[in-house]
Amino acid sequence: MKIAIQGFEGAFHQIAAQSFFGKQTDIEACATFSELVRKVKQDPGVDAGIMAIENSIAGSILPNYSLLKNSGLHVTGEVYLQINQHLMVLPGQQLEDIREVHSHPMALLQCIDFLEKHPHIKLVETEDTALSAKHVRQKKLKSVAAIAGKLAAEIYELDIIAPNIQTNKNNYTRFLALSRTAVPVAPDANKASVYFHTSHDRGTLARVLTKIADAGINLSKLQSFPIPAKEWNYYFHADMEFENPAHFEKALGKIAPLTENLKVLGIYRKGKTH
Amino acid sequence: MKIAIQGFEGAFHQIAAQSFFGKQTDIEACATFSELVRKVKQDPGVDAGIMAIENSIAGSILPNYSLLKNSGLHVTGEVYLQINQHLMVLPGQQLEDIREVHSHPMALLQCIDFLEKHPHIKLVETEDTALSAKHVRQKKLKSVAAIAGKLAAEIYELDIIAPNIQTNKNNYTRFLALSRTAVPVAPDANKASVYFHTSHDRGTLARVLTKIADAGINLSKLQSFPIPAKEWNYYFHADMEFENPAHFEKALGKIAPLTENLKVLGIYRKGKTH
Repeated sequence: MKIAIQGFEGAFHQIAAQSFFGKQTDIEACATFSELVRKVKQDPGVDAGIMAIENSIAGSILPNYSLLKNSGLHVTGEVYLQINQHLMVLPGQQLEDIREVHSHPMALLQCIDFLEKHPHIKLVETEDTALSAKHVRQKKLKSVAAIAGKLAAEIYELDIIAPNIQTNKNNYTRFLALSRTAVPVAPDANKASVYFHTSHDRGTLARVLTKIADAGINLSKLQSFPIPAKEWNYYFHADMEFENPAHFEKALGKIAPLTENLKVLGIYRKGKTH
Repeated sequence: MKIAIQGFEGAFHQIAAQSFFGKQTDIEACATFSELVRKVKQDPGVDAGIMAIENSIAGSILPNYSLLKNSGLHVTGEVYLQINQHLMVLPGQQLEDIREVHSHPMALLQCIDFLEKHPHIKLVETEDTALSAKHVRQKKLKSVAAIAGKLAAEIYELDIIAPNIQTNKNNYTRFLALSRTAVPVAPDANKASVYFHTSHDRGTLARVLTKIADAGINLSKLQSFPIPAKEWNYYFHADMEFENPAHFEKALGKIAPLTENLKVLGIYRKGKTH
């Protein structure tokens, strides 16, 4: 299997791809999320994609909801990954040898409490966490550390001298598995992603959510996003959890008359946390 | 009045501040949204703030919802601004003289259809639209154009040689007026911003929205955002429109028992579009 991901070899997206598709998964590194979607849609050498969609601290990755909606791709599953950031160096280097730490600005920010305890280390912002690890290895940078995930340390043969240095330990990212073609609904499917548009009538959204609740379905996520051609009109992306796909199909029949452009992105198994 | 804004002299935030507080408004330029919030809270020389909260194409500016929620500031009003991008140059320069265009990457992207018709012009990404206009003026850059708003052309005495070059004309940004202290509710107030947290019970959000609809109140915006300490738990930010503040107060009483940490950010007049 070849899986398109956003980011470089050793990125958190690669860990997510391996968690979902298996350890032997090959990746196709994409510089941007748009490229990822394009590869899954058009590249016959790519079997599927893994795309981050929300983070438990930063929230929804809004542009990815729009990309997904406009892509025509299908959601076939999801995976949750705990984002653990580690300080990694060339073998033999110690914390007191380090003069600079390189990483993505978001990763540096996540580790700010640790870094403030070591004020002699200069922070250098880079494009990507895994790429910073790669540079330390390729350029044999002796007094430089990278902050990245565990897989980057393994791939680039760096030593982790300070593990789990992110301030907030409840840092999870949710990734969706994306496919060019629709897959049959598994009998044990218990989650679905849909989007819809409601009319401007007062209370329509409340009526839609009531129908969903009445069908015994739990709304695990509701995200509004704008319709560019109509200012201040919103689409909704909803994730729903249920015991039986038949319950979901029944709810879908109830909400269809209340919504416009109702579209099911995928019906799949609720993901595990890795 | 001195109003804290994000961005430089001539920025769209300054146009929004003048639209809301009057043409003579002085601004306090802040490099980031965090600095803006800090100045409104703590700087005795600053009277109020204007902060972008959503755009009709790009959607909610999620980090600003979190900033607002954690700030303790009060929302006293709103203003909608149509984002018109213009190509501006030193007086005397013509379109055929231009070799480079400088602007923020988002502004360049918004004008990509126009720019692709002029492939001889090189695109140069900068930190800010207004700052690009300032540089053209200060460095007397003859073959360089900036893309920015009308106010930047006025302030830096540049000629607009191609107006309204953004591809999508339905490009509006909504700004909130922020105050350190609560203001009395105006008798003609017809909009409110609140946030709340619902329990994980199935259907609670639907019940909250039904109470709002039953009270004759229109939900104009519903935005979920994460609670960092509890993964995959969400707060909701809701904007509501009504005819009479008493209707809103009544609805508030009805939803309070169904929600946790219900907080009113402000009750104000629905904003005009400029």
